[in-house]
Amino acid sequence: MNRVPEEGMVLIPGGTLITKTAEEGRALALTIARHTVHNIQPDLDVLAGGRPNYATSPDSLIEATRVVAVEFQTIAAANNYWRD
Amino acid sequence: MNRVPEEGMVLIPGGTLITKTAEEGRALALTIARHTVHNIQPDLDVLAGGRPNYATSPDSLIEATRVVAVEFQTIAAANNYWRD
Amino acid sequence: MNRVPEEGMVLIPGGTLITKTAEEGRALALTIARHTVHNIQPDLDVLAGGRPNYATSPDSLIEATRVVAVEFQTIAAANNYWRD
Amino acid sequence: MNRVPEEGMVLIPGGTLITKTAEEGRALALTIARHTVHNIQPDLDVLAGGRPNYATSPDSLIEATRVVAVEFQTIAAANNYWRD
Amino acid sequence: MNRVPEEGMVLIPGGTLITKTAEEGRALALTIARHTVHNIQPDLDVLAGGRPNYATSPDSLIEATRVVAVEFQTIAAANNYWRD
Amino acid sequence: MNRVPEEGMVLIPGGTLITKTAEEGRALALTIARHTVHNIQPDLDVLAGGRPNYATSPDSLIEATRVVAVEFQTIAAANNYWRD
Repeated sequence: MNRVPEEGMVLIPGGTLITKTAEEGRALALTIARHTVHNIQPDLDVLAGGRPNYATSPDSLIEATRVVAVEFQTIAAANNYWRD
Repeated sequence: MNRVPEEGMVLIPGGTLITKTAEEGRALALTIARHTVHNIQPDLDVLAGGRPNYATSPDSLIEATRVVAVEFQTIAAANNYWRD
Repeated sequence: MNRVPEEGMVLIPGGTLITKTAEEGRALALTIARHTVHNIQPDLDVLAGGRPNYATSPDSLIEATRVVAVEFQTIAAANNYWRD
Repeated sequence: MNRVPEEGMVLIPGGTLITKTAEEGRALALTIARHTVHNIQPDLDVLAGGRPNYATSPDSLIEATRVVAVEFQTIAAANNYWRD
Repeated sequence: MNRVPEEGMVLIPGGTLITKTAEEGRALALTIARHTVHNIQPDLDVLAGGRPNYATSPDSLIEATRVVAVEFQTIAAANNYWRD
Repeated sequence: MNRVPEEGMVLIPGGTLITKTAEEGRALALTIARHTVHNIQPDLDVLAGGRPNYATSPDSLIEATRVVAVEFQTIAAANNYWRD
């Protein structure tokens, strides 16, 4: 099996939900979602094989965005919404 | 590839979740959702090709609205619901 | 294009999440969900054409209700659940 | 059209999210979900016609339960989880 | 109709969201989800007939788990996450 | 029936939502989701039989990730987002 590299398997890259900016927090939400996918399916070829399907399907893109929205909700709360 | 322009790739446009009004907060929710889609699929032609499908499907419109609802939940909390 | 009238495009009608009663808060949740749909798809004919499908499909009705549930969660929190 | 009776159209029956018990709060969650469906589709014959489909489909039952779970989350928070 | 027994129709078994342990709280989340399904579809034969379908479909299992996750979110908050 | 071993049936492994790190909290979210699946479908052969389907379907992977996102939201709140 052509396995996702170890750095792609870290569940919370950087080990913290705290980020300096909202932009970095959103990027972390995207990364966390992707790395969880890697943990459920660590075979790079399977992941690469599926990408043309979901990345060109509007419904799949909407669903993927929904996952990011939920992850971001957690990260934004952790950072007190970067209010200060 | 005909790529989404850089400004469409910014994850949190304006760099903050804080807005003056609820109306602006809701508009930000829509924009954030769209820009996340751009980050997952930055090919403008693929995005444009998919739009006729999802934008005319009631189920897809409902799903897209659900993503906006979750983003708005985060933004509304960040703004203390514009209570004052 | 037969466009949704301007008032149907306002994202947060009334400009506030605060309502006098829970009943009004729930009605606002429904309206906000609908106006977001209008913003994603402002063509009245497409919207009217899709309605017979989703409004007679139990699964679509359940999904639409779920969006309203999430919007209401935000509005109810904004109003401290109309506890007083 | 054979319309849902007026009492079935009230969005928040009783006008409040506050209930004496968790059991009543859960029952309210079910009712609120149903009445929202009525507001989106007030034709009793369409609703009755769809019921055999969704009520015998495990996936539809799971989705309907999910809506109730979200409504209950709001109602439970409104009641401070009936902790006292 | 072969009806779900009365005890399976109680929406919040035990009448409270408060549990001694997280394990019991999670078990309650599963029970609450099941009993809500019973209230929407109280015919035991229909429920039993559908089980082979959803319980062997990975997608249905994931959806059912999602409902439990939302119920658990409410119960965990009610119990202050069993922190003490 | 080839049953999931007892340790795979524990709903909250370790009996607590509190973890030392965000990484461990995320791993717990994955485990809790899996063990709930085990409780709904404890037949190892059915679970193993379904895996090739969902683990190679991008949409199923996205849905599974969404469940983990919701579980993580609860666990992160329980741990005050590991802020200290």
